[in-house]
Amino acid sequence: MSAASGRLEFWYEFSSTYSYIAAMRIEQLAEAAKVKIDWKPFLLGPIFQSQGWNTSPFNLYPAKGRYMVREMERLAEQHGVPFRMPAVFPQNSLQAARLALVGGEAGWIVPFTKAVYLAEFRDGLDISNKAVLQDVLRGLKLDPAPIFARIAGSDIKERLKDQTELAQESGIFGAPSFMVSEELFWGNDRLEQALALARRG
Amino acid sequence: MSAASGRLEFWYEFSSTYSYIAAMRIEQLAEAAKVKIDWKPFLLGPIFQSQGWNTSPFNLYPAKGRYMVREMERLAEQHGVPFRMPAVFPQNSLQAARLALVGGEAGWIVPFTKAVYLAEFRDGLDISNKAVLQDVLRGLKLDPAPIFARIAGSDIKERLKDQTELAQESGIFGAPSFMVSEELFWGNDRLEQALALARRG
Repeated sequence: MSAASGRLEFWYEFSSTYSYIAAMRIEQLAEAAKVKIDWKPFLLGPIFQSQGWNTSPFNLYPAKGRYMVREMERLAEQHGVPFRMPAVFPQNSLQAARLALVGGEAGWIVPFTKAVYLAEFRDGLDISNKAVLQDVLRGLKLDPAPIFARIAGSDIKERLKDQTELAQESGIFGAPSFMVSEELFWGNDRLEQALALARRG
Repeated sequence: MSAASGRLEFWYEFSSTYSYIAAMRIEQLAEAAKVKIDWKPFLLGPIFQSQGWNTSPFNLYPAKGRYMVREMERLAEQHGVPFRMPAVFPQNSLQAARLALVGGEAGWIVPFTKAVYLAEFRDGLDISNKAVLQDVLRGLKLDPAPIFARIAGSDIKERLKDQTELAQESGIFGAPSFMVSEELFWGNDRLEQALALARRG
């Protein structure tokens, strides 16, 4: 094991069911472990495309998809997190991820991320719908207009592209992923192990 | 959760690294949980082929393959299990799986399974090599000749085919998988959860 630092990068994709579960669990676990979390939204789409996939592996491989839905039901029960599959899956998460980057600058990325996930996987809403994201922002007492103006500019677009490329260069191929120093952990079920390594650092 | 029974089916593939780790862990955990294990060797090859894969996803998707090797190192350290990647991966596991079915009838499937895995992932040997499998059998004080004669017959071939089809019909798409009644758990890291369900039954 490489040395660690008391920090953990949480790489998540807004369309990912397992990322949702991790996002709802991570704060409490990180606090108990005294580990600082860096919230890192990115897009799986370009990474999947480079593997020759044009949609989620849960759609490409139906047995895997059925298993995921059943496991989500079990995880939701286990962790007391509400869950339903939205009508559209996977959802286009481009705008949500760009907004999250704005939230990273402005200090509201964590509540924004959780509110988007709840809209999608608790309420079954379509997070590619601008009105849904506007409602999420309003729910956080934020004015959507300047924030949407911000993501229309090229800098946020470039930053999301860079962040996604960095994910791929770091060996990330799925979500959620956790990085502790150079050590990669893939999957909601590896969160505790990743935190344990970060804590030792 | 569906009702359970104190029994767990352990579905494994001899070429699977994660199945190896599970095979080395399962007896002790099952004994502590008072759960009876049914050892179910099967072939992932035909299931992968039906998904359009002609080799392991760890070869098809290099980032995933690199991650698997790193995770194997971590798991080996964590569980005190020796590990090295064999020169050939994945290995052709057809003969080993057929032999294991003979062992299921004759009462030596568990030590045979573990000895094959150790030959492959501790010693780096090629388990598609008949001489390697003969040595494994001899190490268990078994005479290889009548056992190899047995797997040349059609009944064992058919039984392995049937078992692999049953796996696929049960929703299994990877290895190791654990079945408790109708409830499927995929992955070495779900073993404890599957045992907890079986124990409640």
